[in-house]
Amino acid sequence: MKTIPVLFSLLALAGVIARAAPADRPNVVIIYADDLGWGDLGCYGNPVIRTPNLDRMAAEGMRFTDFYSAAEVCTPSRAALLTGRYPLRNGMCHDQFRVLRNNSAGGLPRDEVTLPELLKGRGYSTGIVGKWHLGHLPEHLPAHHGFDAYFGMPYSNDMMPAPDAPKGRPKFYEENNAYWRTPLIRGTEIVEAQPDQRLLTRRYTEEAVKFIREKKAAPFFLYVAHSFPHVPLFASERFRGKSAAGVYGDVIEELDWSVGEILATLRTEGLDRKTLVVFSSDNGPWLIFNHHGGSAGPLREGKGSTWEGGMRVPGLAWWPGKIPAGSVQREIATTMDLFTTCAKLAGATVPADRTIDGLDISPLLFNTGPVARDAFFYYRGATLYAARLGHWKAHYITRSAYGPDQPVKHEPPQLYHLGEDVSERIDRAKENPAVLARINEAVARHRADLKPAPSQLIETVARAN
Amino acid sequence: MKTIPVLFSLLALAGVIARAAPADRPNVVIIYADDLGWGDLGCYGNPVIRTPNLDRMAAEGMRFTDFYSAAEVCTPSRAALLTGRYPLRNGMCHDQFRVLRNNSAGGLPRDEVTLPELLKGRGYSTGIVGKWHLGHLPEHLPAHHGFDAYFGMPYSNDMMPAPDAPKGRPKFYEENNAYWRTPLIRGTEIVEAQPDQRLLTRRYTEEAVKFIREKKAAPFFLYVAHSFPHVPLFASERFRGKSAAGVYGDVIEELDWSVGEILATLRTEGLDRKTLVVFSSDNGPWLIFNHHGGSAGPLREGKGSTWEGGMRVPGLAWWPGKIPAGSVQREIATTMDLFTTCAKLAGATVPADRTIDGLDISPLLFNTGPVARDAFFYYRGATLYAARLGHWKAHYITRSAYGPDQPVKHEPPQLYHLGEDVSERIDRAKENPAVLARINEAVARHRADLKPAPSQLIETVARAN
Repeated sequence: MKTIPVLFSLLALAGVIARAAPADRPNVVIIYADDLGWGDLGCYGNPVIRTPNLDRMAAEGMRFTDFYSAAEVCTPSRAALLTGRYPLRNGMCHDQFRVLRNNSAGGLPRDEVTLPELLKGRGYSTGIVGKWHLGHLPEHLPAHHGFDAYFGMPYSNDMMPAPDAPKGRPKFYEENNAYWRTPLIRGTEIVEAQPDQRLLTRRYTEEAVKFIREKKAAPFFLYVAHSFPHVPLFASERFRGKSAAGVYGDVIEELDWSVGEILATLRTEGLDRKTLVVFSSDNGPWLIFNHHGGSAGPLREGKGSTWEGGMRVPGLAWWPGKIPAGSVQREIATTMDLFTTCAKLAGATVPADRTIDGLDISPLLFNTGPVARDAFFYYRGATLYAARLGHWKAHYITRSAYGPDQPVKHEPPQLYHLGEDVSERIDRAKENPAVLARINEAVARHRADLKPAPSQLIETVARAN
Repeated sequence: MKTIPVLFSLLALAGVIARAAPADRPNVVIIYADDLGWGDLGCYGNPVIRTPNLDRMAAEGMRFTDFYSAAEVCTPSRAALLTGRYPLRNGMCHDQFRVLRNNSAGGLPRDEVTLPELLKGRGYSTGIVGKWHLGHLPEHLPAHHGFDAYFGMPYSNDMMPAPDAPKGRPKFYEENNAYWRTPLIRGTEIVEAQPDQRLLTRRYTEEAVKFIREKKAAPFFLYVAHSFPHVPLFASERFRGKSAAGVYGDVIEELDWSVGEILATLRTEGLDRKTLVVFSSDNGPWLIFNHHGGSAGPLREGKGSTWEGGMRVPGLAWWPGKIPAGSVQREIATTMDLFTTCAKLAGATVPADRTIDGLDISPLLFNTGPVARDAFFYYRGATLYAARLGHWKAHYITRSAYGPDQPVKHEPPQLYHLGEDVSERIDRAKENPAVLARINEAVARHRADLKPAPSQLIETVARAN
């Protein structure tokens, strides 16, 4: 009687090996826009900006209505994407210094495990094209975090204005490319001190297409982190002056073209049925830049805020033959989930020695069942401001995204029902004490498990990159 | 040499006759929701409410991004739809009495020419199912304005509260069907004094389907004017409590089902390639009702206002084989255009003895060319508040939709670019005097041609319907 179980075990083991064989490990492409709002794409209801390629991606794949970045600004959002963890766990956030600057000493800690590191362990080629913003000093660059290849900017495209650039906020409206000196890096070397930002999206796209063509034999992980629509805004000649939405629209329409090029390359190379492509944004639209900022659609506020507009972002997933075409997914999902989900798809094991906040959302992607999610937590810097459980969202603290006002604590918290009131207009705390109690319990569970790491965003160095 | 031109003329005449033959006259179905917001449908970016039938209608037809009702509230909007004229021309608006009430004496003047009258002249069967709101006294009912058949309510579903209904705005949250006594009329007779509003959408739908089946031999014009999502909100058991967006979502999801039933009937009856179906709303969402009101998406304000959210509404057009599937139309179009367009499609002549504001938008529908449009004018009651020319919109007067505040005149007018700033946040009047001058000229042209009619909305009678 013993033979059969052993045989079954051997078959099961063989099954595991077969599942882990190269043919079963999908390529993964994550395309991450910078400061793109929930309402900026046609498939999310934008009335002006033309995004036929992203709309087609949605029609051929899955569009998430409730997809979240794990942070309200750039650096922590990217740290969470690559580690599957709330930024407070790895020190990549701070209440005052909200992102890394061009004189920051810090970066993503080496002992953090990134998605490309996990995938490299499963035989993946790994590449990043575009904005890194997890530490610009040589010791923090992508090469030290699992990426074989890197071409792009170390931080935001506005972080090295030229000395003669006009000061103050209106400078961002000045579309003079000569004012901006964020460098381009290849591998670990600065290859251009003052790249022409009008060509950025095009060059990132060419680099991404080249990576796919060169790495197609093995499974690959490609992270395309666009520098736009972060201000200052630039588009190439083909797109400049073409959108009724002005330069912001030009820039989004070029990003849309870029997505089209990448998907077309996957089709041409016969990789479309072997590749999961996810499109999202690092946070909401930067509303202080008026018509140089995007739109959160019906959502309240934008980048920098823990209102929905600050952290709920576009989320598209595409994998022909696996993800049901034309599906709209209304369950909550987050950028952190991509870490866990992609690791599982590649047959990698997520680290067991630390808390991973991301969940495996394959059941949502493949429409095979629900995902057991507790609450989602909205941090502003290192402070928890709000929490969502099901359709209910409690705001413990509110504050305008970038104003001089101080945080306002709410007791009881403000409570909004995001199903009936997606714009967060009607505080219903008084009538729903039991809901608040459940959210409070979820926050307590979260905090019991939370060991904040020292912030990497404080220390500076004399040398800018 | 004379024979050939004559022959050509005869052929051309034969062509005209052929074009006017029954086979060439499309059926027309206009489905008009009440207080539905621009942002309430999935295909317009609503994140919560499920509208698969309307989304499919958009995917099989044309979705307008810049589709306008000619008024900010109910009565004038419906007058404009049926006459192709701004309501001020036919007295169906008033600054204080904004709509007809259940004790109004007035109605649409008999000398107005309606779309069903024009289509009857071309052999159409004509029917209205749902809300009329162009005069409830016998002499004003649809039978006197070109409709062969009528089943529905004479005015809004909140206009006859029962004496024991709670007073004040919160009453609308009270979903007690017994509080509401707007009657149902068939033809010219009241057939139910207190219909169960939970069954309204279903009954309207059954009536519409029946009309199509019975009238299918000849061309027909069917106007389905839903009573919802005007408050109070009621859905049938199948939809009640099903939407994450609450009762508002339930109601929209039932309306969506209703549209699906109508389109399915057209397909089943083999009429889909012979029928133009248009879906729209009479004005924007009634925001004062909080989660019992809809969403204008990224647009500012709602019903009652001349900000975009008050008058820009969903606009879908469907005619398989004629209207290109999956098209997004970004040109301006208005409900008034339906008058002129449908008349032309039916081979009818629009009246030449009066100004018709609607344009023939067939070139937009069939993607055959542009339409020469001057400005679009935003009235609040009988007063011109704003005007749009291309992407620019000038506000001469602003006022909150329903607040106690007085109108504020702007000199210079506020000026917004609806392409770069669809939410009307950035007044750019100072930098653009030439744009303002062009809009002023358009307003002057409009006013030169305008003969306001005496308002029908003032006089009352003792007898309510």
